Amino acid sequence: MAGPMMPFELTNEFLERFEQAVEEEQVDFIREVLDGVAPQDITALLDEFNAEESKYVIDLLPTEISAEIVNDLDEDVQARFLRNFASDEIAAFVNHLDSDDAVDMLMDLPVKTREEVIAMVDNAEKASHIVDLLRYEEDVAGGLMQKEFIRANINWTITQTIEEIRRQGEKVEKIYSVYVVDDSNLLKGRVSLKRIILARDDTRIADLYEPDIESVETYMDEEEVAQLMQKYDLDAVPVVNVQGKLVGRITIDDIVDVITELAEEERNMMAGISEDVEEDDSVWRLTRARLPWLTVGMLGGLLGAQFIGLFERDILLIPAMSFFIPLITATGGNVGIQSSSIILQSLANPSAFSESNWNRFFKALLVALLNGVILAGLVFGINMLFGQEVRLATVVSLALLSVVLLASFMGTVTPLVLNRFGINPALASGPFITTANDLLGLGVYFGVARLILSTL
Amino acid sequence: MAGPMMPFELTNEFLERFEQAVEEEQVDFIREVLDGVAPQDITALLDEFNAEESKYVIDLLPTEISAEIVNDLDEDVQARFLRNFASDEIAAFVNHLDSDDAVDMLMDLPVKTREEVIAMVDNAEKASHIVDLLRYEEDVAGGLMQKEFIRANINWTITQTIEEIRRQGEKVEKIYSVYVVDDSNLLKGRVSLKRIILARDDTRIADLYEPDIESVETYMDEEEVAQLMQKYDLDAVPVVNVQGKLVGRITIDDIVDVITELAEEERNMMAGISEDVEEDDSVWRLTRARLPWLTVGMLGGLLGAQFIGLFERDILLIPAMSFFIPLITATGGNVGIQSSSIILQSLANPSAFSESNWNRFFKALLVALLNGVILAGLVFGINMLFGQEVRLATVVSLALLSVVLLASFMGTVTPLVLNRFGINPALASGPFITTANDLLGLGVYFGVARLILSTL
Repeated sequence: MAGPMMPFELTNEFLERFEQAVEEEQVDFIREVLDGVAPQDITALLDEFNAEESKYVIDLLPTEISAEIVNDLDEDVQARFLRNFASDEIAAFVNHLDSDDAVDMLMDLPVKTREEVIAMVDNAEKASHIVDLLRYEEDVAGGLMQKEFIRANINWTITQTIEEIRRQGEKVEKIYSVYVVDDSNLLKGRVSLKRIILARDDTRIADLYEPDIESVETYMDEEEVAQLMQKYDLDAVPVVNVQGKLVGRITIDDIVDVITELAEEERNMMAGISEDVEEDDSVWRLTRARLPWLTVGMLGGLLGAQFIGLFERDILLIPAMSFFIPLITATGGNVGIQSSSIILQSLANPSAFSESNWNRFFKALLVALLNGVILAGLVFGINMLFGQEVRLATVVSLALLSVVLLASFMGTVTPLVLNRFGINPALASGPFITTANDLLGLGVYFGVARLILSTL
Repeated sequence: MAGPMMPFELTNEFLERFEQAVEEEQVDFIREVLDGVAPQDITALLDEFNAEESKYVIDLLPTEISAEIVNDLDEDVQARFLRNFASDEIAAFVNHLDSDDAVDMLMDLPVKTREEVIAMVDNAEKASHIVDLLRYEEDVAGGLMQKEFIRANINWTITQTIEEIRRQGEKVEKIYSVYVVDDSNLLKGRVSLKRIILARDDTRIADLYEPDIESVETYMDEEEVAQLMQKYDLDAVPVVNVQGKLVGRITIDDIVDVITELAEEERNMMAGISEDVEEDDSVWRLTRARLPWLTVGMLGGLLGAQFIGLFERDILLIPAMSFFIPLITATGGNVGIQSSSIILQSLANPSAFSESNWNRFFKALLVALLNGVILAGLVFGINMLFGQEVRLATVVSLALLSVVLLASFMGTVTPLVLNRFGINPALASGPFITTANDLLGLGVYFGVARLILSTL
């Protein structure tokens, strides 16, 4: 990053003036006013412009700034935006980015462009880093790591290590720790910059380093990496291959992004949105992301209609039975979502995960029973107060209690089963469980009704 | 932290052996086997034991380890667990913790214990830091910051700065940057450790430091701090008071916790859980957290029953009308949750927030129209296929379309309105919107039915 960063505020006056400058192609004004502004702030500014205008502004900036701006864009926005750039322009960006960011950028390009860009990267070391990193899936440690870090041989002295920092320091923006390896590049431990500063120049790394540190293997899932770094409060973690050789490191800023993305993904699943969409995606994409689960819900609703149809005679006899359908289905849905949400939280936070499955079912059952009895009691009381028939009030309250128990069981079991089979358990909190509970609820309601109305 | 950390795996065999050791009070075995194990791993191990047993083990460990273990516990578990300790024992923990962690620990103690503990803290500087930090709310920058950081005067040389690092380094576990202030403690900028290592000893800080860095004021909301640190990829941010004087710093590990907590809070709200609960809370607490929203849903259901009751005659005439109640209410619920979830995402991620409110309503309307027309068309087709009456099939499909439009509007507007009034918009994605949409859906359905059945 170049130059001092000014805290920058995007005012309406500035925006209007800047729009005018872009329209009238006032090159000097644009360059001057953006000098020293953080790339992240320029990204936010360019959000207000279309792709063509943004490219015009970006082309006026120094490459180290424009590379950061393009790097800052959301994944799909970036892929779309880069279609406006030639391969050599993209290669210029790549030259200025850390290897992990460069790979993220290249991942979403057409294969032909990607190969062209790699061939055009000046720096042979960076090009080979990129080719190396492209082998990994995006969501494992290897796909998150970067090749920019400082490595010291265990036999070096502090002076030699500082020399290495001098040589590599330009490339490594944030160092955090120097990783210590032996002659065959096996990870032995780390030395913090603080220790290096405070040590005497002739101290040997072997006498200073911290052994047995946490590390991750290239194939570890990103969620596990995030949990590990969060558990041990790490700001960076070294990545080793299966032989234990040091191949990269993952820094906390990338993990913060992983945590945010996973939370977003989970929310989308809970809301029944099946693609990674954002509000500014196209109408068609937004519709497509929402339609699958709406269709599932609709089919559930039609199945429910068929099912209720079986009880047409009962409804003709006691039409008030149909009045309580929304109460039953809504309560089932609410209980199911609550139950699965609590399980989701436990799964996301395994440290609090000390209960055995039996204990957890028993506890969920107790909570459900307590909630169910209270709700059923309230409903019975209110129904009596409003002069409802005792028979029907009994049916409704008994059905409600059963639905609470059943929905709680479903909500507890479904995410655990999904998780066991490697499917994201958040799926269980979405329309899936709501739809299933609607149908179950209707079954219980009309089942209880038949049973009681025929006996009482 | 003391000693080397061994990667530690909790096996069943180990657990059994350790349980036996605790039961038989094998002091030496416990001390030996836990020597060099990371505090976080001991915390996970103690999860398997009750409070009394845990305290027994903790009392056997060096205070710097036991302080970390207690610090690692979840907020409410910690508060409960600390009731087993005397004030002087807690003060011993506090002596070993960073000021921000110490304050978090003290916050949840009864006022009397808190005062006792503060009076017992040996280190006068730490005690005054704690008293200072206790003034801030937990969820603003002041409540997140710590007093342990390295400060250098702008007129110092590198040698003087390294001297300061030597003096304070013991207290500051992770330095990241040295913050630069003038004679009146006004924040001027920062110097990274990398720069300090690479600079000559007689270089003046004034010639080396990076000016105009990002900082936050003590009263900034934790969510904003998290957004800022995420936007600029910061590993630490200095905190200043209203005069711009440096008073503390916030490190990224605390922000990672904030991000995780906010996501959890949001999930709980979406699921209609009204307290911060976890699966291992008591049955009563879990019930209490779930009951409020279940009751709201229940009242909505009873209101719905009253409402459907107004159409008893229609149902007697065409009982099949009641069959489609779950379809209508479920679809309304699903659409509402999807819509509000997309708005939530935009609110959480303001950088993609370029659309005006008009644009966003228009777009949400288009998406809803597209989804609604497709769903209504499908339902009409299926109903015809299964030999449903044309009149009723028309009513159902028209009502479905209206419900999709209405629920989408509600789902878009409600979180925006809540957000405007400073209420967490995630509330809108919970049972609130589901219940409201159920009632609206019923209204639309029976309204359309009356309209069409009386004219056709």
